[in-house]
Amino acid sequence: MTYELYYWTGIQGRGEYARLALEAAGAPYRDVARKEGDHVIAEVGRTLATPSFAPPFLKDGSLVVGQVAVILLYLGDRLDLAPKDERLRLWTHQIQLTIADFVLEGHDVHHPIGAGRYYEEQKPESLRRAEEFRKERVPKFLDWFETILARNPEGPAHLVGNHLTYADLSLFQAMSGLTYAFPNLMKRLGPKYGKIDAVCKRVEKLPRIAAYLASDRRLAPNESDLFRHYPELDP
Amino acid sequence: MTYELYYWTGIQGRGEYARLALEAAGAPYRDVARKEGDHVIAEVGRTLATPSFAPPFLKDGSLVVGQVAVILLYLGDRLDLAPKDERLRLWTHQIQLTIADFVLEGHDVHHPIGAGRYYEEQKPESLRRAEEFRKERVPKFLDWFETILARNPEGPAHLVGNHLTYADLSLFQAMSGLTYAFPNLMKRLGPKYGKIDAVCKRVEKLPRIAAYLASDRRLAPNESDLFRHYPELDP
Repeated sequence: MTYELYYWTGIQGRGEYARLALEAAGAPYRDVARKEGDHVIAEVGRTLATPSFAPPFLKDGSLVVGQVAVILLYLGDRLDLAPKDERLRLWTHQIQLTIADFVLEGHDVHHPIGAGRYYEEQKPESLRRAEEFRKERVPKFLDWFETILARNPEGPAHLVGNHLTYADLSLFQAMSGLTYAFPNLMKRLGPKYGKIDAVCKRVEKLPRIAAYLASDRRLAPNESDLFRHYPELDP
Repeated sequence: MTYELYYWTGIQGRGEYARLALEAAGAPYRDVARKEGDHVIAEVGRTLATPSFAPPFLKDGSLVVGQVAVILLYLGDRLDLAPKDERLRLWTHQIQLTIADFVLEGHDVHHPIGAGRYYEEQKPESLRRAEEFRKERVPKFLDWFETILARNPEGPAHLVGNHLTYADLSLFQAMSGLTYAFPNLMKRLGPKYGKIDAVCKRVEKLPRIAAYLASDRRLAPNESDLFRHYPELDP
């Protein structure tokens, strides 16, 4: 069965977290809006009993699942990207939701007043928010990721247990966005977070992920994405 | 087995979403920080292999679960507050995550620059953000809740199927915060959302919830909580 992923064209965005899971598992999927245009996203939702509040959503036959973390909860079991053990399965999901919180804060740096206005309309506010993000929030989140890697009873090669999970993939993706948006900050902070870096490098080198990253299915980061590089926010 | 809930004292906050599930099911639980003080929250996390990034977290014997939505995923199965059917179980979780997004936006109205500064230090930015929240975001979220109630094949008495789930409880809690923080907005918008209102009234009248709301375990909303009533943000 071919999965169908619905997400905006033109950015990696939140769709990328689902895409990386599908790619890492070598699962067959169709990136529907990229084939047919963004208009299909609204069309599918119009009559569905379970419409997603926002993309991405995933169709698997007649099942439609929205919210990245729920998509990954669903795919994790099917694509062997989540532990079978119930406790570790919940822990993987908890990490995913914390990564989602982090990514949202990364987005809100350039949209503190709201997603309905352009960055250029909220630049003074962004400058203020970016300062707190760089000084308080990024270290707090990265400290947590580094800590849970250090405390993993199976060792720090993976966030959960001793196998790849969707949480590892998502950490890679979040760190790749963060490093794109805040290269100066990460030049200063990066060396403190060796365990995070090792997980990301391991993900990057997985044969299927490496092939994906080199393909034209992987879009370049840009200033419409969740993490954006505005030099004034990263002095 | 008595569940142990860890959350800041003094506010309903995110802990309330877990508390309502425990109360609705009549489950035995201990609200640990309210008994022993906020310091226990950090103490528990200090050495745990699975520390929560932030409270609330729930202990069930040796299991510790954090992130409200994961707590509810866990409790939903055990307290019969989630459907057994896998699709509906995922849909319930998807709704919960969308409610969590909404609640976070409700919080960020008064903290657009960051949680590390007082409201008084970000008032001009809050005034701007509140306008978009009132005009764009609240209608968008409420339209979605009303739509999924209208499209529920089992009728609009519940968000999912024809039984109470944790999503109904969470919708009640989010709407109760919204109405506290934005009474003027809700006077104008409320009448448009009859199905949401009916679900909330039904939750409020559940015998165990009614008893809880009348007890001293239910704290009053206040200006340290997620939803806050600042009259200037609700003209």
